[in-house]
Amino acid sequence: MDDIITLDYGSGGIKTSDFIDNLLVPAFDNTPLNKLADGAVLDGAERLVFSTDSFVVSPWKFPGGNIGRLCVCGTVNDIAMAGGIPKYLSLSFILEEGFKMWDLKEIIASIADEAKKAQVMIVTGDTKVVEHGKGDGIYINTSGIGILKNPRLGKEYIRPGDGVIVSGSVGCHGASVMMARSGLLDGDGPLRSDCRILTDLAVAAQDAGNVRILRDPTRGGIATVLNEFVEDSPLTVELNETAIPVDATVASACDLLGLDPLYCACEGRMLAVVAPEDVPSVLDALHRLSGGEKAACIGTITQKRPGQVILNTSLGGRRLLGKLSGHQLPRIC
Amino acid sequence: MDDIITLDYGSGGIKTSDFIDNLLVPAFDNTPLNKLADGAVLDGAERLVFSTDSFVVSPWKFPGGNIGRLCVCGTVNDIAMAGGIPKYLSLSFILEEGFKMWDLKEIIASIADEAKKAQVMIVTGDTKVVEHGKGDGIYINTSGIGILKNPRLGKEYIRPGDGVIVSGSVGCHGASVMMARSGLLDGDGPLRSDCRILTDLAVAAQDAGNVRILRDPTRGGIATVLNEFVEDSPLTVELNETAIPVDATVASACDLLGLDPLYCACEGRMLAVVAPEDVPSVLDALHRLSGGEKAACIGTITQKRPGQVILNTSLGGRRLLGKLSGHQLPRIC
Repeated sequence: MDDIITLDYGSGGIKTSDFIDNLLVPAFDNTPLNKLADGAVLDGAERLVFSTDSFVVSPWKFPGGNIGRLCVCGTVNDIAMAGGIPKYLSLSFILEEGFKMWDLKEIIASIADEAKKAQVMIVTGDTKVVEHGKGDGIYINTSGIGILKNPRLGKEYIRPGDGVIVSGSVGCHGASVMMARSGLLDGDGPLRSDCRILTDLAVAAQDAGNVRILRDPTRGGIATVLNEFVEDSPLTVELNETAIPVDATVASACDLLGLDPLYCACEGRMLAVVAPEDVPSVLDALHRLSGGEKAACIGTITQKRPGQVILNTSLGGRRLLGKLSGHQLPRIC
Repeated sequence: MDDIITLDYGSGGIKTSDFIDNLLVPAFDNTPLNKLADGAVLDGAERLVFSTDSFVVSPWKFPGGNIGRLCVCGTVNDIAMAGGIPKYLSLSFILEEGFKMWDLKEIIASIADEAKKAQVMIVTGDTKVVEHGKGDGIYINTSGIGILKNPRLGKEYIRPGDGVIVSGSVGCHGASVMMARSGLLDGDGPLRSDCRILTDLAVAAQDAGNVRILRDPTRGGIATVLNEFVEDSPLTVELNETAIPVDATVASACDLLGLDPLYCACEGRMLAVVAPEDVPSVLDALHRLSGGEKAACIGTITQKRPGQVILNTSLGGRRLLGKLSGHQLPRIC
């Protein structure tokens, strides 16, 4: 571990994992935490899913969304991916002195709108203000509670032969935010964040077949999340590059910015590992829903290289995809 | 409402109330939120208390505690004050690039230590890093879930004749942090934050008598919280200045800094309104516990001036105590 915090520790990649594994897990050691899912499953009269996320996206407004939409989608999706039905959110602002009330109203309206779509209630909150120069406009934390519906999700359920499904084209959120930050994007073009609620897609997939694990590939993109599925296991993710949906606008933006769409954050896409016989029915269910039209099976679970992710490229070659190292995309969410 | 956010909006006083009442409640309107308690009560198979707080205290270390201890106490206490037994916490960091790993380890150790004392598990988390100059070292959000044990707490239960109890001397946290910030305090003196878990005191008070409402007087101090107990009601809080425990060190610090201890934050004190006949038994129960030794009945509920808080001063005069206006103590928690 380094002596000081660098941006890499917030990247969602290798340094973030190091920080969690070496500092946080030993300090707070307990069963729900140690699973290191995006949401913790809590035992009780009713089993609950509990999740938290702080949002520091820069700029706070980007094509296809803003920090308000994002802070609802992010936490709601973490609960849905853990097999829960999201019910309640908390909302906590850290505002910088001088932030425009008009902008705050726009953000609050987006939060209310997205919470309604997600069918969650915002039931408690907090507001802090820091001096000018000690923040960056607005940071938001949302934490959420859902009712666990499917306790049989997790990487321990993944088997050789399973299919890997993504619910839509990848990298739109990361590419949009980075283009907006660079000033290269005016917001009227076709490149937009994929930011959206995933509860309906998650429920449909689980109803349609035997789903082993669900995740929204945010920081670190699909490459990093797929690595997390198989690390420390005898399994391999084999991806077919030609099957991975990447919008032409995202591909162009990534070329321009020197990014790889497979490492770019999505905020409205779902990765699902599905039993082989159920891949067609899950794809069919997703294709019927808004936001799932481009769902595709992008790979298979094998045992060729234990713990690794292999990309079979469009040119017939093979490439190992590691976890994100360094901060390809700081402050993307 | 102003056109820009000022520090006043984070003070816990009048502007904070305006912001909540005019912007947040209309946007997110729902029954658990509209009660505006520090924790929301959620219906379900088991009734839950859900609370959130972001911590931006400056400096992050102060005599008697640090942001790590504070972020556990703050959220745990909000749940205890709502009649719940705290069970689970989430933990989310917003770190500034360049923050020292050594300091972060100290904070994490304090969090682990305080969580153990509070008998809560930290079950989920998140870490974001912002560029140097876009934060102030470390901000932390904790959200928490507890099991509701006492659904009969709230200002609607307050009656004329009830006693007002405080569990210990007031203003220690606010005075300590402000002295530390001013550089006037070296940490070896007797002035220390009162930062502590209140679950045991809250449970003891509720077991010992008919408690109408509980609150920890953080931002805005006891004066602001007591105003919230009676505003928009026909009731009055009448306080006896001589009965309010104020440590000599806090009184001196407040004199020096131009602060009023009644508006200074506590982070380990509890205000309880108690049925008249149960005041002695509740005081007796608190006196037996660590942190409750100086518990005192500091006033009575009357109907003299509807919706207001009156201080009967040590000199025989009377003073109206309004809610905190402006930011007496920015970034105190």
